Amino acid sequence: MQALPGFRDFLPEACARRNYIFATWREVMRRYGFLEWDGPVLEPTELYRKKSGNEIVGQLFNFTDKGDRAVAMRPELTPTLARVIAANERQFKKPIKWFSIPQCFRYEKQQRGRLREHFQLNCDLIGEAGVEADIELIALCIDLLRAFGFARDDIVVRISDREFWTEFLEARDVPPEQWPQMLQAIDKSEREPRERTAENLGRIADAVFQTFAEGGTSARLQSLMQGLAARGLKEFATIDLKIVRGLAYYTGVVFEAFDRKGKFRALAGGGRYDNLIGQLSDGAASLPAVGFAMGDVVLGDLVDETAAASAQLAAALQTSPADIFVIIAKEDRRTDALRVVQELREAGWGADYPLVAAKVGRQFQTAQQLGARAALVFGDEWPQVAVKNLENGQQQLVPKEDILAHLAGLPILSPRARRSQVERPLEES
Amino acid sequence: MQALPGFRDFLPEACARRNYIFATWREVMRRYGFLEWDGPVLEPTELYRKKSGNEIVGQLFNFTDKGDRAVAMRPELTPTLARVIAANERQFKKPIKWFSIPQCFRYEKQQRGRLREHFQLNCDLIGEAGVEADIELIALCIDLLRAFGFARDDIVVRISDREFWTEFLEARDVPPEQWPQMLQAIDKSEREPRERTAENLGRIADAVFQTFAEGGTSARLQSLMQGLAARGLKEFATIDLKIVRGLAYYTGVVFEAFDRKGKFRALAGGGRYDNLIGQLSDGAASLPAVGFAMGDVVLGDLVDETAAASAQLAAALQTSPADIFVIIAKEDRRTDALRVVQELREAGWGADYPLVAAKVGRQFQTAQQLGARAALVFGDEWPQVAVKNLENGQQQLVPKEDILAHLAGLPILSPRARRSQVERPLEES
Repeated sequence: MQALPGFRDFLPEACARRNYIFATWREVMRRYGFLEWDGPVLEPTELYRKKSGNEIVGQLFNFTDKGDRAVAMRPELTPTLARVIAANERQFKKPIKWFSIPQCFRYEKQQRGRLREHFQLNCDLIGEAGVEADIELIALCIDLLRAFGFARDDIVVRISDREFWTEFLEARDVPPEQWPQMLQAIDKSEREPRERTAENLGRIADAVFQTFAEGGTSARLQSLMQGLAARGLKEFATIDLKIVRGLAYYTGVVFEAFDRKGKFRALAGGGRYDNLIGQLSDGAASLPAVGFAMGDVVLGDLVDETAAASAQLAAALQTSPADIFVIIAKEDRRTDALRVVQELREAGWGADYPLVAAKVGRQFQTAQQLGARAALVFGDEWPQVAVKNLENGQQQLVPKEDILAHLAGLPILSPRARRSQVERPLEES
Repeated sequence: MQALPGFRDFLPEACARRNYIFATWREVMRRYGFLEWDGPVLEPTELYRKKSGNEIVGQLFNFTDKGDRAVAMRPELTPTLARVIAANERQFKKPIKWFSIPQCFRYEKQQRGRLREHFQLNCDLIGEAGVEADIELIALCIDLLRAFGFARDDIVVRISDREFWTEFLEARDVPPEQWPQMLQAIDKSEREPRERTAENLGRIADAVFQTFAEGGTSARLQSLMQGLAARGLKEFATIDLKIVRGLAYYTGVVFEAFDRKGKFRALAGGGRYDNLIGQLSDGAASLPAVGFAMGDVVLGDLVDETAAASAQLAAALQTSPADIFVIIAKEDRRTDALRVVQELREAGWGADYPLVAAKVGRQFQTAQQLGARAALVFGDEWPQVAVKNLENGQQQLVPKEDILAHLAGLPILSPRARRSQVERPLEES
């Protein structure tokens, strides 16, 4: 038996990588003052149909449950956000700044960087319509990526403005019912031959290509870039009107983060969606909003390909399952040893010991394999214990009642110092 | 629209509670040297049928996916563990000590402490058949509960031994094919009238009741209690042969943790399952194992009802979304303020500011609502900034280039100290 296609097993090393990604995200979200929330993995299918139309159902893990409800495993979190905000927004001061790290599911063809499940950081700022909120979210997106060790040579956020295009279409008398297909044609222009785009755009094709060539911009995009410049983040971003984003519900600024080399799919994407919460909640809550999502799969691939980022990851994962290994040299000391194991753990040390009798040399081997920094030998010297610093080989006999104090004074890491060291890559990023 | 029945929304406060439970679990698992892993939320239905028979399917969120596969949302993690262990065990030194915190799903009638989803800490020790492993797991179960602030008056682990009962049945010539129903009758004896149990047990009923009355035990249970006594944990556990556990696959020691008052369902339960991995993997890996699971729902209910545990929870949740609030008294200082916000966040401070122009008094209000410990006022004094300690009201003008150093010296918490304080309840538990 195997895992289903497109689903991952997380063995300890993969799980530690995943936890590193989550911890890095959470640390930056804390600095930006966002609160974590979450919704159910399973929701009524109708919630997704309402936002994305019937086409979405073909990409869902959806079914009828034993209570005859049409349900679906969440493909994204935004519809749940709209539901939860509509029901609870009155109890929260605006702007509401929330994030979540849901696992999301789509039944689609597997490709590089796209599985049938992934974890996705969702960041949303709700209740503020101004460009300052857009700047805050884009700065956040950049700082999230920087926290993994990416520099301006590694990543870029391409920023555009839906309103630029809707004004553009309006000025050229394109009827509003044609706007969605025009915006889609612009969105696809990078991935399709120029002739195909020209065909899709019809009479406005030349004007669009000219805008691309001129590197068009708007007053809003200008003030957005100024806001990023004020934070020293301008070099991580660029105005690029070719970005439109496929989803119909964006109303203003949209953006996508990419690796500079253009080797991978988007690392993150989002924008302003001022009408969606109102639509999804049937007007129960009408709030402007801006948000984005960042997945774990492409991000992990780019970390692996970027020297500084993968070195940072490796440093963060260099934690051993045991700080201290207790060696039971004489089995009649097992009970005494177990009492000390318990004391060590209660003091916050990671402590391990052999469950069954084994030769002392073998036990020292295990201690090394587990990456322990010190070994305590329980044998003939009892009620003294030999404490061996496994980093420099020094050994000393210590009376049993002094063990904790002795360990605290050794030049090996204390539980708290050890934890801080693990976290340092985040703090110094 | 609402969440589906039996599914929870986690608004920020509920999400913080959930994260506190996870962090507390993870901290104890680290001290015991267990590594975290995870499997897919969705698995082939056959994986669960193989372990639990056809009856399980009636309790599953199962369906046929778009590739015509019979799939189910995981009701538990053990079958996935067997699958992953069978495929990968050779690369891991024994004993394998793993934990996971999966969300699990069952379509069942909602009751107090039982929803249709819950998070469940799974702890398994694989590859060691001796009683020392049983002791280690039961000690772990006790220490996990102690880490939430529960004392010996709050909780108890009731420990039993399946082998005691199978030897008992063998000695009384009960044919092995009747053992499962006998074990089930013993398991249910506490929840059913004595007559019903007597009827189910038939001719051995008197002998069983006599064993209950005598408080029967076994050599293995005695050495297990001695092992717990060596760790100072004996008063958290009791031998209780009425515990059998419903699941058919347990082969030796079984245990369940309860609140002392008996008000709630079991907090945790598990035992030894020496044959299951071999069965589920068709013999690909035949390894003895002992494990248990602890859910988040009953645990959370008991925390709320226990003064010390709920005080510890409240202390852990007392974190504010912002350490420092930046007040923009003059809008023409916004750019300067934003640069400092960025610097504060890069130094690890949680920093926030008003996205739109607002009166200074209103901004101070927001700072207080967010629980900020200091406010920086950007106004006429620029390039100096007024730094106000919101905890004692003291204020001082500081040149812009000295802000970070000044904050580090203030008697408010530095980013690292602040994090340590949040974690202290875990370390001192």
